[in-house]
Amino acid sequence: MEIENKFPGKDISEDDLKTKFPLAAKKDPEHRSRFTIAGAEFGGDLVPVFAGPNMVESESLIVETAKAIQASGAQFLRGGAFKPLTFPYRSSKYNETREAGIEWLKKAKEATGIGIITEVMEEKFIPLVAEVADILQIGARNMQNYPFITACAKTGKPLMIKRHFGCSLRDWLGAAEYAMVEGNEKIILCERGVSAPHTHRGSSRFLLDLQVVPAAQEVTHLPVVVDPSHATFWAPWVKPMALASVAGGADGIMIEVHPDPKNSAVDPLQPLNFAEFEDLMQSMRKVADAVGRQV
Amino acid sequence: MEIENKFPGKDISEDDLKTKFPLAAKKDPEHRSRFTIAGAEFGGDLVPVFAGPNMVESESLIVETAKAIQASGAQFLRGGAFKPLTFPYRSSKYNETREAGIEWLKKAKEATGIGIITEVMEEKFIPLVAEVADILQIGARNMQNYPFITACAKTGKPLMIKRHFGCSLRDWLGAAEYAMVEGNEKIILCERGVSAPHTHRGSSRFLLDLQVVPAAQEVTHLPVVVDPSHATFWAPWVKPMALASVAGGADGIMIEVHPDPKNSAVDPLQPLNFAEFEDLMQSMRKVADAVGRQV
Amino acid sequence: MEIENKFPGKDISEDDLKTKFPLAAKKDPEHRSRFTIAGAEFGGDLVPVFAGPNMVESESLIVETAKAIQASGAQFLRGGAFKPLTFPYRSSKYNETREAGIEWLKKAKEATGIGIITEVMEEKFIPLVAEVADILQIGARNMQNYPFITACAKTGKPLMIKRHFGCSLRDWLGAAEYAMVEGNEKIILCERGVSAPHTHRGSSRFLLDLQVVPAAQEVTHLPVVVDPSHATFWAPWVKPMALASVAGGADGIMIEVHPDPKNSAVDPLQPLNFAEFEDLMQSMRKVADAVGRQV
Amino acid sequence: MEIENKFPGKDISEDDLKTKFPLAAKKDPEHRSRFTIAGAEFGGDLVPVFAGPNMVESESLIVETAKAIQASGAQFLRGGAFKPLTFPYRSSKYNETREAGIEWLKKAKEATGIGIITEVMEEKFIPLVAEVADILQIGARNMQNYPFITACAKTGKPLMIKRHFGCSLRDWLGAAEYAMVEGNEKIILCERGVSAPHTHRGSSRFLLDLQVVPAAQEVTHLPVVVDPSHATFWAPWVKPMALASVAGGADGIMIEVHPDPKNSAVDPLQPLNFAEFEDLMQSMRKVADAVGRQV
Repeated sequence: MEIENKFPGKDISEDDLKTKFPLAAKKDPEHRSRFTIAGAEFGGDLVPVFAGPNMVESESLIVETAKAIQASGAQFLRGGAFKPLTFPYRSSKYNETREAGIEWLKKAKEATGIGIITEVMEEKFIPLVAEVADILQIGARNMQNYPFITACAKTGKPLMIKRHFGCSLRDWLGAAEYAMVEGNEKIILCERGVSAPHTHRGSSRFLLDLQVVPAAQEVTHLPVVVDPSHATFWAPWVKPMALASVAGGADGIMIEVHPDPKNSAVDPLQPLNFAEFEDLMQSMRKVADAVGRQV
Repeated sequence: MEIENKFPGKDISEDDLKTKFPLAAKKDPEHRSRFTIAGAEFGGDLVPVFAGPNMVESESLIVETAKAIQASGAQFLRGGAFKPLTFPYRSSKYNETREAGIEWLKKAKEATGIGIITEVMEEKFIPLVAEVADILQIGARNMQNYPFITACAKTGKPLMIKRHFGCSLRDWLGAAEYAMVEGNEKIILCERGVSAPHTHRGSSRFLLDLQVVPAAQEVTHLPVVVDPSHATFWAPWVKPMALASVAGGADGIMIEVHPDPKNSAVDPLQPLNFAEFEDLMQSMRKVADAVGRQV
Repeated sequence: MEIENKFPGKDISEDDLKTKFPLAAKKDPEHRSRFTIAGAEFGGDLVPVFAGPNMVESESLIVETAKAIQASGAQFLRGGAFKPLTFPYRSSKYNETREAGIEWLKKAKEATGIGIITEVMEEKFIPLVAEVADILQIGARNMQNYPFITACAKTGKPLMIKRHFGCSLRDWLGAAEYAMVEGNEKIILCERGVSAPHTHRGSSRFLLDLQVVPAAQEVTHLPVVVDPSHATFWAPWVKPMALASVAGGADGIMIEVHPDPKNSAVDPLQPLNFAEFEDLMQSMRKVADAVGRQV
Repeated sequence: MEIENKFPGKDISEDDLKTKFPLAAKKDPEHRSRFTIAGAEFGGDLVPVFAGPNMVESESLIVETAKAIQASGAQFLRGGAFKPLTFPYRSSKYNETREAGIEWLKKAKEATGIGIITEVMEEKFIPLVAEVADILQIGARNMQNYPFITACAKTGKPLMIKRHFGCSLRDWLGAAEYAMVEGNEKIILCERGVSAPHTHRGSSRFLLDLQVVPAAQEVTHLPVVVDPSHATFWAPWVKPMALASVAGGADGIMIEVHPDPKNSAVDPLQPLNFAEFEDLMQSMRKVADAVGRQV
């Protein structure tokens, strides 16, 4: 009788919790990891906010953005200096800023004291990135690059593991377990949209899977952040999906913010400008309050 | 340059709005249909709530449920007397109640005055169902049965068109246009989950597509209701997904409620009991208030 | 241990074969339905071919096509007089021909003696369509319209049930069981593409699911036909996918053929012209021979 | 008018061929790469066959398998010494054999002279793997690990890039372009199944996307191999899908073969035994002959 199943999901079993991802699995229904990074507590009532541009385009842009999002209440500045691009060709505008970008993130941190999260893509750059980052971001495309996750985890730095757009919750927890088995307990999960046949047509590039928030929270004690910007790829949908994420129990929100979205180096359709972000923060505070959380 | 696109979705074009679904399409960004059914206004600040069991199992069950959900603030009683089942075999428990079920819905309406929504599956039963229903529900499996939609629309009764789990927003709006071309303006859309590869594995039967709420509201003036019970198939996820729906801009919420969920004739994993529904209503009121709506 | 599972699929169990679709289920591994329609045997070594235009556009077009495909060796003429269109608006070119179309199919049958398959969409037209059709086609969009399947099955006419692009094998077999429970044993399944996230992007409208051929043949004795034209939506891919279907074990092939594809009333990208069809038939014969079948 | 589109796929444009993947793109409709590896020509009429176990479990197993598949006509021995596993825990049976496995592959090569393909997962092991491998395999999970693809490409060794189960054709060609931009022209694509909502339910772990064969061949000159074993995850479906692949135009076939499938260290449901593989080879030869190719 189906009602006996604890988990309706077909490929996470009770046995998986014990043998496949024992470290990531909840020990009891109330079990939630709590840890503090750059002064912000994860796993409690706070819903930390990560904001910033897709690419760390220039020093002035990233410092200006850091100040603006901090003024609106964000706890972390996000922005990529190293970034996987689907094709190998770059233009002067559409390019990684690499070592320079990392340097500019340092400047933003010095100017504001804000926490920093940024993606790292290669083992050889881990030390460089770890110098400035409070959280190392494992991008969706590296979610199943297990030797790399192991190397990042060994730094002891907190990690955010973004879910690949083609991977199941079970695959995602496997990635987290690879990090935890190295003794690293500050692991954050981040949902950023899945490729889905129906909504893709007639709507967007990816489909934000909000249902994975309660699904994940049912089996793991790790915090689950949601990134509606990359999922929707479309600024007008970011606010409703961000509010939905907070109401649905997300343990953090990542928002793409750019001083001048239409001139963003990458994906100009998705960032909010500063005023839109300030408006979103005010709305998220109200929704968080309605569900007993704080933004 | 992609930023010129009004709609990021790939298969809804500006031309579609004018030639494929001109009646369902918004005329301007502020355009929203408003209409009142059984005393509840759709398309305004109110977020009407539809609640009740999957099946109208018995007179006592449906009358008891009507009273309970009305006391908690729901505007509509839902419940199926006619219902598509994947296989043709029935047991005494797992069965349609058909004409008797319609009669019991009438009793529930007489006892409470609550609005009624129920599914109709065949043209020959439209008059019978229309006698009691304030809204005729076109089930997901009939979403592309255009002659049937036409027949339902001709009654002049308000219609709720559930989205098929394998259909795009564009397909869905085609179904709405078939109803509107008959002169019926009280058309309600209802999202109830899509089949998706990733979340299905490791979580649930369907994936609730909340992103379709802003996507639909961008192109159509019709109200968009969300049914998290059928999407998640799992009662513990209904509350977070219902709150997310309200925060994300849903124009109505449909919830499966049963006095004794584990003995529900169909899908016992998904209904809330009366106490859980009362708790959900209180939480939805707070979230609605946070986003300038009312439940 | 997973190796004990007879069926790796997650939602078809041994119990389903006995209780959900006992009539459609195989009784033993060698069990295959065999029946003859319009002189062509299904379920044996023959791979019957259905060919013709999307729409029965005119008498001359359908008679000409019947002669051409018969000369190339097709056993059945296909073509829609009644046809579900996603939006309710028609042009002089893009329209159903309805009663006239049925009349023209009769003319084609009189002129050639070829078997006829055509879609029926409404109960009231079943008698009209059944007058000319050797096989009633239930379109993908009606696959879950169970009362309609029941009504078609009661005519005793052979039925072809196309798989909805969003439905699983289990759903599809449920539709077949609804037909068989009426005592109708001449049921043919037809795969015509599923909506899938990955291939859709960068390739086509639907993804032809050839894997469902051995999957279906593992659990049901019913013949499984494949329609690569509707799946690929793109004439250059029809030949490789048709040959793949024959090699993969398909029990019939449906091909869209039009005398002048680019002027086809519907979906002009997908039909083959007569010469391309003749070439395909020759190639299919060779592949069929290589796998012990005949086209 | 849609008929003007050269490619029906929505996210590969004419412009993409020139600016996103100019090296992987066809220059004209007849353009096909031809190159020879370990004596087998790719891109011509030959359909090379890769066969062997999932894991290189032991020296005796891999040498025995190399002899058996060579006797049946396979050109390449496949088998993993390094292998991504979804969870970090290993048992004595379910484990990578790493350096030892590479050594055993060398023994198999010495014993038979057969070509070797094996996966490499980390930059530091590239030299070790490149010593024995005629083709370096980039696994599906590393398909978007661009720095790693670059490093592999720089060896000058032929590469096989497996398609991630959640990635589009466009994503896949981006990975190939990363390899080609390093001057490496011996790039082989390999389809091994996508995650799809419909077929997954009721059938298998992945859905073999055969339609991607003509789709890829329309835009790229690179050979496209198909791996039905990993896609179907189920030995009884491997033969029909392998034959379908050959008939559908695949430029190579990869088959999992194990002397004792049910005792395979990994995925015991999918390998063929030696007799089944011999039977498959004979059937593939006939189908290849029917379409003007050779196995």
